[in-house]
Amino acid sequence: MCRHPAWPAGRSKGSPVGGVTRESGIVKYSTSVSPTVNTPLALSPDAQDLLFRNARTANAFSDEPVTDDQIAAIYDLVKYAPTAMNAQPLRIVIVRQGAARERLLKHVADGNRDKTANAPVVAILAADTDFHENLARTFPHFPGAKSAFADDVAREQAARFNASLQIGYFLLGVRAAGLVAGPMGGFDANSLDDDFFAGGPLKSLLLVNIGKPGENAWYDRLPRLEQDEVVFTA
Amino acid sequence: MCRHPAWPAGRSKGSPVGGVTRESGIVKYSTSVSPTVNTPLALSPDAQDLLFRNARTANAFSDEPVTDDQIAAIYDLVKYAPTAMNAQPLRIVIVRQGAARERLLKHVADGNRDKTANAPVVAILAADTDFHENLARTFPHFPGAKSAFADDVAREQAARFNASLQIGYFLLGVRAAGLVAGPMGGFDANSLDDDFFAGGPLKSLLLVNIGKPGENAWYDRLPRLEQDEVVFTA
Repeated sequence: MCRHPAWPAGRSKGSPVGGVTRESGIVKYSTSVSPTVNTPLALSPDAQDLLFRNARTANAFSDEPVTDDQIAAIYDLVKYAPTAMNAQPLRIVIVRQGAARERLLKHVADGNRDKTANAPVVAILAADTDFHENLARTFPHFPGAKSAFADDVAREQAARFNASLQIGYFLLGVRAAGLVAGPMGGFDANSLDDDFFAGGPLKSLLLVNIGKPGENAWYDRLPRLEQDEVVFTA
Repeated sequence: MCRHPAWPAGRSKGSPVGGVTRESGIVKYSTSVSPTVNTPLALSPDAQDLLFRNARTANAFSDEPVTDDQIAAIYDLVKYAPTAMNAQPLRIVIVRQGAARERLLKHVADGNRDKTANAPVVAILAADTDFHENLARTFPHFPGAKSAFADDVAREQAARFNASLQIGYFLLGVRAAGLVAGPMGGFDANSLDDDFFAGGPLKSLLLVNIGKPGENAWYDRLPRLEQDEVVFTA
């Protein structure tokens, strides 16, 4: 665990929220992890540590394999978390090492290529922009659900938003499986979609390397924003 | 726990993924919750239940208050989950009952108004589209980080995506605090933003009612998509 010296506040324009209070004064932060005691949480300290406090984004992976059963268990857990109108637009494409991985690497930014080549599993996380085709089954008490998403632009926006919530759930699900995740936005989504999803409704949102941590898997934890920079009262 | 009869598959166009395998046959689902035993997860069954398996979206709330300490503990937990370039664009505006709640209700869809009026806390979850102002402090090893987000359109897109991941973390954080969440997309984001964030960089993404469950807090759990509808192999 490391500590950085205090830095000046990065923004000086005051509260971003009209009519919302904000503490004034110098913004402080620390990169140390908060103690798990004396917090009013129902989640056990071990689970807090596994999912949030000790979990880190990994940049190197060991050779230990990730099994299909582990991936299935992750989905079987995170599938219960909510989406608007139970839309569930997230699709997860598992890319193991071999020809498919080589194909994937062509679309990955240079700085992400080595770790993406070496991870046991890379998941392409994508939004199914035709999620509305499932609503008669997944939101059956509202027969008009599918036609409420007739507009292509609004439907793609809803697909991307809800799939992004599900990506949040999925990244924590990877940690729940005792694995580490390495999410990466550094790839060419258009060329990847053309190559992997040509003509289909899927739109890639994020790549995630998944495995057990290798040597030098993490950098120092970066600072998090303080309560009074994030939580306001109206 | 209820069981629905099997439904025909809602979509018949085959695999949405080019070059990706998909099991054929009738799509089955069940609304029953999967057993927590015999899964290869590191997270304890109690924590699985608290965050995912037993947790439900609530539509009614008791009078029991939600404290500032609980909200602070939720943020202090979920702040550690990852965002691209440590951008952390999520902002949380707490709306308690009173004048601010009345102001909020004007922007909420009719069907959501009663439960939004009665919840002890409503959180406006918003993306700070000026998150790049913090990057010199939160991503200090890359001095070009702020200027990489000079383009307003790309920056707003990044703000919305990363804030949406953080909303996923936050909703699970509410559950980690032993509270129930009621996320709602049914509100007028433009009029809400004009009223609460006029001229500022915040863009509202979701409202979330937070509290303890009241009477008749939930409907039957809706069906989740099967593994072979969501998880593919490239």
